Amino acid sequence: MKRKLISEAVKKGKGRVLLKGWVYRRRLSKETAFILLRDASSVIQCVIKKSEVDTETWETANDVNIESSVEVVGKLKPDPRAPGGFELETEQLRFIHKGEPFPIAKDFSPEFLLDVRHLWLRSRKMNAILKIRSTVIGAIHEFFRSKGYYEFTPPIFTPTACEGGATLFEVNYFGNKIWLTQSWQLYAEAAIFSLEKIYDVAPTFRSEKSSTSRHLAEFWMAEMEAAFMDYKECSEVAKEEVKFILKRVLERNLEELKLLKRDLKRLEPSLKKKFPTITYTKALKLLKEKCNLNVKWGKDLRTIEEKKLMELFDTPVVVTHYPKEIMAFYKPVDTEDKEAPGPVAKCFDMIAPEGYGEIVGGSERETDIEELKKWLKRGGEKLENYEWYFDLRRYGSVQHSGYGLGVERLIAWICGLENIKDAIPFPRTVDRWRP
Amino acid sequence: MKRKLISEAVKKGKGRVLLKGWVYRRRLSKETAFILLRDASSVIQCVIKKSEVDTETWETANDVNIESSVEVVGKLKPDPRAPGGFELETEQLRFIHKGEPFPIAKDFSPEFLLDVRHLWLRSRKMNAILKIRSTVIGAIHEFFRSKGYYEFTPPIFTPTACEGGATLFEVNYFGNKIWLTQSWQLYAEAAIFSLEKIYDVAPTFRSEKSSTSRHLAEFWMAEMEAAFMDYKECSEVAKEEVKFILKRVLERNLEELKLLKRDLKRLEPSLKKKFPTITYTKALKLLKEKCNLNVKWGKDLRTIEEKKLMELFDTPVVVTHYPKEIMAFYKPVDTEDKEAPGPVAKCFDMIAPEGYGEIVGGSERETDIEELKKWLKRGGEKLENYEWYFDLRRYGSVQHSGYGLGVERLIAWICGLENIKDAIPFPRTVDRWRP
Repeated sequence: MKRKLISEAVKKGKGRVLLKGWVYRRRLSKETAFILLRDASSVIQCVIKKSEVDTETWETANDVNIESSVEVVGKLKPDPRAPGGFELETEQLRFIHKGEPFPIAKDFSPEFLLDVRHLWLRSRKMNAILKIRSTVIGAIHEFFRSKGYYEFTPPIFTPTACEGGATLFEVNYFGNKIWLTQSWQLYAEAAIFSLEKIYDVAPTFRSEKSSTSRHLAEFWMAEMEAAFMDYKECSEVAKEEVKFILKRVLERNLEELKLLKRDLKRLEPSLKKKFPTITYTKALKLLKEKCNLNVKWGKDLRTIEEKKLMELFDTPVVVTHYPKEIMAFYKPVDTEDKEAPGPVAKCFDMIAPEGYGEIVGGSERETDIEELKKWLKRGGEKLENYEWYFDLRRYGSVQHSGYGLGVERLIAWICGLENIKDAIPFPRTVDRWRP
Repeated sequence: MKRKLISEAVKKGKGRVLLKGWVYRRRLSKETAFILLRDASSVIQCVIKKSEVDTETWETANDVNIESSVEVVGKLKPDPRAPGGFELETEQLRFIHKGEPFPIAKDFSPEFLLDVRHLWLRSRKMNAILKIRSTVIGAIHEFFRSKGYYEFTPPIFTPTACEGGATLFEVNYFGNKIWLTQSWQLYAEAAIFSLEKIYDVAPTFRSEKSSTSRHLAEFWMAEMEAAFMDYKECSEVAKEEVKFILKRVLERNLEELKLLKRDLKRLEPSLKKKFPTITYTKALKLLKEKCNLNVKWGKDLRTIEEKKLMELFDTPVVVTHYPKEIMAFYKPVDTEDKEAPGPVAKCFDMIAPEGYGEIVGGSERETDIEELKKWLKRGGEKLENYEWYFDLRRYGSVQHSGYGLGVERLIAWICGLENIKDAIPFPRTVDRWRP
């Protein structure tokens, strides 16, 4: 509860403060009322003794529903047993607004809490997650800006599909059919010829028809794209970014992580240790030898396989050189990976520990127009939609790479959430778009 | 051109550097070639003397199209006449990629430049604007975070209209009809009960059917919402924010503003002077007395009227207390403005100088459910869509206010742009959604 303010008031021996907030919990006895008052910063216990306060204060304490907004005047008293370390010896309590009985009382089922998400945001849990989310996004800005990247905001309305047409949301655009962006990439590739090193944090849309604990129809991606950079250097930037974000959260949100009951021991290795890089082919070998799981070379890793693989590690792992056949059209073939039994791409994913799945996907970008055309055709795309993209290879093409980081997946891992829906304030899924 | 790197190299007496970039301009004579090389940072002149370089270098210089990507090795020589202050005595020039003839050569019509926007981003003009855009957005984050605001990302998919249904973009959402956000406000109002002070920078969508130099179908808004704040304090935050952004741009982007030929004298008053606040009623009086323009009380200010009004000022102006009848349903009536001949709202706009129009719109938010219902009904809205929003007034309601800042409008003013389309990398309007 306005921690800095309070500790300063106590230091100066003043002690008397006016606090505004909402009633989080209340406990009554005949002579004393205990109100846990919450505000954005934290929670403080207000002790109200009938014999020491005016009638209105005592009546208010008796009459108040939780989540009512109140003003409290009192003296701060350090108390190591109290949540937050202080108690307030209340002198006066007044309603700002006397709330109706709060509807979140008995039913805490996930679906009900999503129905009343606009109220559930007030919970200690959502408050903690939203603060960590703010830290995470702030750290992304800080990371890239400190490295000389420019922020570049991509268009959300796009005339061209990027990651395949099946999961596109269609918009009626003044009578024309266009789509919501699935990735900034094609546009970012245009912009690096001007700014060289760019990043964004922006909403992204995938019409995922499956309702899982890992998918959202609307989510935020933090992407980067850089000229004169190969996929290896690019994957090192991704590692550094994730480490940096984690560092910032551990610096600033220990209290929130504690509230979320996150086991810090699960996060610490990622702060201290280097994240390993292995090839897809090597990952399959590990799955076979150590997890007794047979994956046919050429198949993408499924959730369960990623999860099993990650039981072998205590930090995120970068997996490179996925089979070209299952990769997007713009990921170039690499001939360096000699162990691979088939063509692989200059690409990488970063997989989070503890079953949180892919948090980063990146690659070098194909600069050969004929190669691009070949893979687009195989994917059933209309080449004329990509003429402007081919232009980026016609006039002073350069080697370049980029990746996207799934903000909610990262938050889910850092916070140890069971469902990705809690990593975003108002989740949108196949069966959820209200409130 | 990598200015820091270069000046350090010169200082150390080394002087020999390897530069990568794109050919911006070329001038040839029999014995000497001059190549202006550009990269993300700036432009440098490379002098190539036939007698002093190898055959491949000379041939490359003769053979190169503009926008080809090249590598140059040479010695730096300070030269005050040269753009950037240095010249490169070239020793070696090599193609990274030999570009085809660049299509932007003779036709510089606005429509053509929008057709090839993916290439036009490379222009010195767009490069400068994009850098300023990055500074502006960075400054918004910095401003709010330094004041203890949390970043809160709103949903883009919304089941409820906010600023009126006429300009909504409809999305086919798994067979259901939903809309793209026009403002984060309703969701932000829910979140302040958890975080108290929040802000965002996010894309916003309005299906504006008119094609003007001030409207985009997709634009970015920087919004804030704060609990326990009235509209007056809120308007002061807006003034401070705009001043802070301007300060950051003037600190970091003088070179870019110069390139854009922005008259700094037009910006300086806004840095130094307090922005005035006047009421709508007073604005009408000024328009009548000083501009000979009669606006009927109760009508919104039109573009031409805002422009005329702003000829009386050299900084942004906050206009408060617009007639309630023309305001959104959530703006509460104020009885304090005694001069107004009719009901006015606790609201404000900030209007930019030089005809750049409204850059900020904000208000206090109505907390009385019956008032909200009355105005929603008048607007023809279905009340059941707003039940969740009414909830925010049922359980511990508090005074709160917020505003939205139009990022592109602000950039257009700071950069002195003729058209708002140049304030965003890939503009979307009624007749433009490619590339």
